[in-house]
Amino acid sequence: MDERDRISRRRLLKGAAGTLGAAALARAGLAQESSPPDPTKVPGRALTELGQRSPFAQPKRLLSGPYPQLTATPIQDLTGIVTPTDLHFGVTHNGVPAIDPDTYRLVIHGMVERPMVFDLEALKRYPAVSRLHFIECAGNGSNGFHDIAANLTPQLIGGLMSTNEWTGVSVATLLREVGVRPGASWFLAEGGDAGLVSRSIPLSKGLGDALICYGQNGEALRPEQGYPARLLLPGWEGNTNIKWIRRIEVADRPFMTRFETSRYTDALQNNTARQFSFEMDANSMITFPAHPAVLQDHGWWEISGLAWSGRGRITRVDVTTDGQHWRPAVLQDPVLPKCHTRFRYLWNWDGRQSLLASRAVDEAGYVQPTVTELRKARGLGTKYHYNNILVWLVRPDGSVVFGLAG
Amino acid sequence: MDERDRISRRRLLKGAAGTLGAAALARAGLAQESSPPDPTKVPGRALTELGQRSPFAQPKRLLSGPYPQLTATPIQDLTGIVTPTDLHFGVTHNGVPAIDPDTYRLVIHGMVERPMVFDLEALKRYPAVSRLHFIECAGNGSNGFHDIAANLTPQLIGGLMSTNEWTGVSVATLLREVGVRPGASWFLAEGGDAGLVSRSIPLSKGLGDALICYGQNGEALRPEQGYPARLLLPGWEGNTNIKWIRRIEVADRPFMTRFETSRYTDALQNNTARQFSFEMDANSMITFPAHPAVLQDHGWWEISGLAWSGRGRITRVDVTTDGQHWRPAVLQDPVLPKCHTRFRYLWNWDGRQSLLASRAVDEAGYVQPTVTELRKARGLGTKYHYNNILVWLVRPDGSVVFGLAG
Repeated sequence: MDERDRISRRRLLKGAAGTLGAAALARAGLAQESSPPDPTKVPGRALTELGQRSPFAQPKRLLSGPYPQLTATPIQDLTGIVTPTDLHFGVTHNGVPAIDPDTYRLVIHGMVERPMVFDLEALKRYPAVSRLHFIECAGNGSNGFHDIAANLTPQLIGGLMSTNEWTGVSVATLLREVGVRPGASWFLAEGGDAGLVSRSIPLSKGLGDALICYGQNGEALRPEQGYPARLLLPGWEGNTNIKWIRRIEVADRPFMTRFETSRYTDALQNNTARQFSFEMDANSMITFPAHPAVLQDHGWWEISGLAWSGRGRITRVDVTTDGQHWRPAVLQDPVLPKCHTRFRYLWNWDGRQSLLASRAVDEAGYVQPTVTELRKARGLGTKYHYNNILVWLVRPDGSVVFGLAG
Repeated sequence: MDERDRISRRRLLKGAAGTLGAAALARAGLAQESSPPDPTKVPGRALTELGQRSPFAQPKRLLSGPYPQLTATPIQDLTGIVTPTDLHFGVTHNGVPAIDPDTYRLVIHGMVERPMVFDLEALKRYPAVSRLHFIECAGNGSNGFHDIAANLTPQLIGGLMSTNEWTGVSVATLLREVGVRPGASWFLAEGGDAGLVSRSIPLSKGLGDALICYGQNGEALRPEQGYPARLLLPGWEGNTNIKWIRRIEVADRPFMTRFETSRYTDALQNNTARQFSFEMDANSMITFPAHPAVLQDHGWWEISGLAWSGRGRITRVDVTTDGQHWRPAVLQDPVLPKCHTRFRYLWNWDGRQSLLASRAVDEAGYVQPTVTELRKARGLGTKYHYNNILVWLVRPDGSVVFGLAG
């Protein structure tokens, strides 16, 4: 018997009854329009070519603009680990290009034996790989480090990340085809958008788990994720996963593109900066309860959230409900490398003010730091790789606001 | 070094170049409308609230009608194991009801200590479970057993199945809440559509891995999959996974509903029939190459497909390319219980007529039968649970048509 068996039934029902009143009032108009009084007494509608959402469940991304334009996934509204394809976060520096798959080409050249041009059919003909991985923007979590405000939501703090099942060809396969010359150690990955967003990638990653992807959650990539093909560097900061990839140039040094000099380089405490900080560090976020959720009653609640690491599998997530004592959460199977892991923790809320936070540990032994530790290491000028522990404050009236651990 | 390392580069490129000509011609009109000659020379479009598909990639389900209405997933066009949410197959006997989540209720009564009514918020308050599982219609595969035709596609034969990540509350949790009385052994699950589709389910399944689901691929269930809540019985025939579930009645015997007497009962060879044939047997299907694909050249091709079993994990898939000799395929990780497993097999096509088929084995030791074996066991009057081995005939011109193994 675990904690789940000890839930108080009466408290649970009292809570549920409480939520009904407010929600029902707010939705009365929509309900009358969209739903008959008794749906079993009227014929239902026919199936359609694409299965649409209910009018009562219409999640949306948040948009910023104009450049770089960001759109954030509503992670507080999502269950499990898979992000709905049309809710996958997006970042674009120069807009989303419209690419005809028949004229699409990927060139691989530089320090190779046989420069080659691949069309989309050629990429699809190679042996394929499918894997569930998260992609996270290097700047995700910024609001949880710099711009603390009580009304921040998981979407506003951490919505620049998503997990999909990605399908493509291994970059290593393509590099074997072109024959990498001795001495090569980096490659340039160049996107086919108006800004030719480009990054230098160590060759070892290309020979490792990198993919040229054309599939996303079973279907073709969507344009905002790089249609018809993108680079996927599992666990590495989002911008290196070059979308609309059109060129790979193999070389013996990095290229120092503007996206690794003017951007995506991390200021440190001692007036220096670190460059090529590719891996996303172990991180976690409670997505429920979190602002704007309101707990309708004290009693048992399941705390739930996401944990992830660019270094491999999550091995442990600890949760605190008082800001002091940490206890292990349950990790939901499957726990996959470089993929979101859903964690769950049953909490019996006594109705008093409470501090909720989670702390992830990955298989490399990396432990998610506090904001104090992270600020000490980086200073306040840092702009990327925010993985500090986040705190939600549950107030006695059940409202939840964002806070920060010391 | 595995077989993947031995792909002939020149053959690969020759094949790819071949595909380009025909496809480019067919799409010239669409290309000029939707895509600039050089997308890097014009600003891209802005991100949108929902990430839409490319105009060049518009998959569709196939619709039948009117009742029961079916809609089939285009599995020959999909990668990996996750089915895009709006392409999940659908079956409805009485149309899709429009249900207001605020007035939705689930009643559990019958042989219980405390009859209870749950609203959606109450269901969501319980500890949640997320799992990747396939759902398959009991009649899936019918065309591959009865209505053999050369131009059948994977969608037409096997498209009444899909894999999503499902989230909900364990039925066992709810049954603990109401307190099942001694002697109870079945429960009725009743849907909230106009036909009140109902099935009798052994209590042991309810105390096992059954869920009341409200989430699908991270978001709310879509109406065609049971919004706001459905029963999920992992591995069991689709119709038992009651959509729009509104009532569970616990009892000491099955209810003999019309969906388990006039339908979903399997005729056998000896003029008898079997009832309550819940588990979907181990099965597999090659999805590439399959009709209407045309291989543009001989040389290396990756055969790819899906395998699944209602009894647990797939442990092995064998592939034949000559209709006689079987060799093991590679199973793509993760291999999850009662979930689609993607298999892959590299094949060096010599240009001659070839017979391609796959045969799945699950962790219960069950081996997918030939159509001869299945017909012998069931006779030709059977209407459900078709899991016979399927054969694709590759002709010397590269066209692929449907056949059947003896």
